[in-house]
Amino acid sequence: MKIKIAELSDLMNRALTSKYYSPKEAEMITEVFLFAELTGKNTQGIIKLFGTEPAQDVKPKYPPKIIKETNLSTLIDGGGAAGPLVGQIATDKVIDLAKKNNFAIVGTSNTFSSIGAIGFYARKIANNNLIGIVAASSPKTVIQFGGIDPMYGTNPMAYGFPTNEYPIVFDMAASAITWSGLVRAKALGEKLPENVAIDKDGNLTTDPDEAMQGAVLPFDRSYKGSGLAMVVELLAGPLVGASFVQSTGDWGSIFIAINPDLLAGADSFKKNASELIKKIKAGRTKDGQKIHIPGYDSEKAREAILQSGEIEIDEKLINDLKASL
Amino acid sequence: MKIKIAELSDLMNRALTSKYYSPKEAEMITEVFLFAELTGKNTQGIIKLFGTEPAQDVKPKYPPKIIKETNLSTLIDGGGAAGPLVGQIATDKVIDLAKKNNFAIVGTSNTFSSIGAIGFYARKIANNNLIGIVAASSPKTVIQFGGIDPMYGTNPMAYGFPTNEYPIVFDMAASAITWSGLVRAKALGEKLPENVAIDKDGNLTTDPDEAMQGAVLPFDRSYKGSGLAMVVELLAGPLVGASFVQSTGDWGSIFIAINPDLLAGADSFKKNASELIKKIKAGRTKDGQKIHIPGYDSEKAREAILQSGEIEIDEKLINDLKASL
Repeated sequence: MKIKIAELSDLMNRALTSKYYSPKEAEMITEVFLFAELTGKNTQGIIKLFGTEPAQDVKPKYPPKIIKETNLSTLIDGGGAAGPLVGQIATDKVIDLAKKNNFAIVGTSNTFSSIGAIGFYARKIANNNLIGIVAASSPKTVIQFGGIDPMYGTNPMAYGFPTNEYPIVFDMAASAITWSGLVRAKALGEKLPENVAIDKDGNLTTDPDEAMQGAVLPFDRSYKGSGLAMVVELLAGPLVGASFVQSTGDWGSIFIAINPDLLAGADSFKKNASELIKKIKAGRTKDGQKIHIPGYDSEKAREAILQSGEIEIDEKLINDLKASL
Repeated sequence: MKIKIAELSDLMNRALTSKYYSPKEAEMITEVFLFAELTGKNTQGIIKLFGTEPAQDVKPKYPPKIIKETNLSTLIDGGGAAGPLVGQIATDKVIDLAKKNNFAIVGTSNTFSSIGAIGFYARKIANNNLIGIVAASSPKTVIQFGGIDPMYGTNPMAYGFPTNEYPIVFDMAASAITWSGLVRAKALGEKLPENVAIDKDGNLTTDPDEAMQGAVLPFDRSYKGSGLAMVVELLAGPLVGASFVQSTGDWGSIFIAINPDLLAGADSFKKNASELIKKIKAGRTKDGQKIHIPGYDSEKAREAILQSGEIEIDEKLINDLKASL
């Protein structure tokens, strides 16, 4: 069904303020979920208010707190709060520090859930004329190439680059299928695609149950994909003091912001990044279709939805959310 | 043939000092080529002293010079020198700055060749208890996913992480086959592997000539691989003031060093990175083979070769090198 974006935001805010979060905190979390819905990543959207661990129902242990701070960095203990709240605090911090000192790195640990649509944070950094790099570890799902046990999280990373138009925002998971992809297939009684997962004995499987007891393959089925998963595991695990190769659900994340003024300069970078996009878009395609620039092209779609004031959301989800309030 | 490593170094130094490089500069370049040979990447080794543009025969326009400097960054104009010389200068600089200020970023442009075995630099940074990230752009070879024209370089990136044993060093190209892979197949009259390249009309080809006039696919044949190629093109192009989406041969590179003391602390990071490796290595494999940790495991092999004092090199290359002196 179509629902007014303002009404959807209000519903999410009401759910999130019903127990543990202040109106300001609820707004920060809602902004991330809404961004996911507006960019077509609905597995990171309103669905996060349902399931076995709805964001509004998991009690934080204590408020997020800064446990270390330098002129270039902040280490945040999430206190068991919802990931997006801690992700927002971290992003605001990394932008603030990088605006002052041209570089910043912020790490978070101890959130009860993932920070959600990781491109949200990279875009926010890029919107401040900074280059953003964001990565997040998660419970072990993906094999080390050559092995058959789950080791790494699906471990997404995102990059945001300012241009003279929209930011370029590229994000990707290290896994051939996301965990929510397995959950969805199981719930719908569907088979998985071929060659994305193995069972506990290391045999390829299309059965989501077997895959959940087994492991997921890296996105490219090679050492490169599992190498990138390892890189994220190190940056968003040991570097931020979070668990690693873990199934405890202590999620870690890392946020980096670099001011292009450190090198070629922000104006020059943005001009040339725009020029780079122009060159890429001028390329031929085999079928005459348009070249797609990550984040950059979808931003027009997001603006159009925002302007229309309405968004398409599954009616059952809306009704369930209303009933829960 | 087996050759003493000391003799091989001496031969390379003599070639490199024959025209344009000082003994000190020659040593810096030789160290990178030798590292490539010692780690089995012989397309980045002694072969660089042969071919159409031997490292010793291309005249630099002027000595590498610093064109911008802050407490956290340095921008270097390579002056048309061999990539590895500028890569070494950049790496020493990024380590020096990051040791003082906990973070540094160094960009280079205007080298006449690639910086070579990119893992060399990431390892050197990691050997200084810093996390290293290195990436390099190169002339356009790889498609934007969906397109059929060459756009990005093979654009390798490398990550180095200190541990309590050897550093973890992970490096990868964004392309399904390297440019030297095409050159080699052409020289030997061999076909390319299936599904790594397209001809100028966008059709898959196994003919190296057609591929050279066409383009190479991203390593995973998906938007993720070309997205990573784009990330490197932006970081080692517009950010460092180098050319991009280019065939001019103005190579750009980026060097980043992060002190783990900014977040969880270097001791804690190294301890947990070692623990992470232990967990990964304890995983099962389907065939009982050992799990391979990038860079970390090969370091033992490199040490063994160094200790033996001898290395296996193609006899013809050695003889040709001697004859050229």
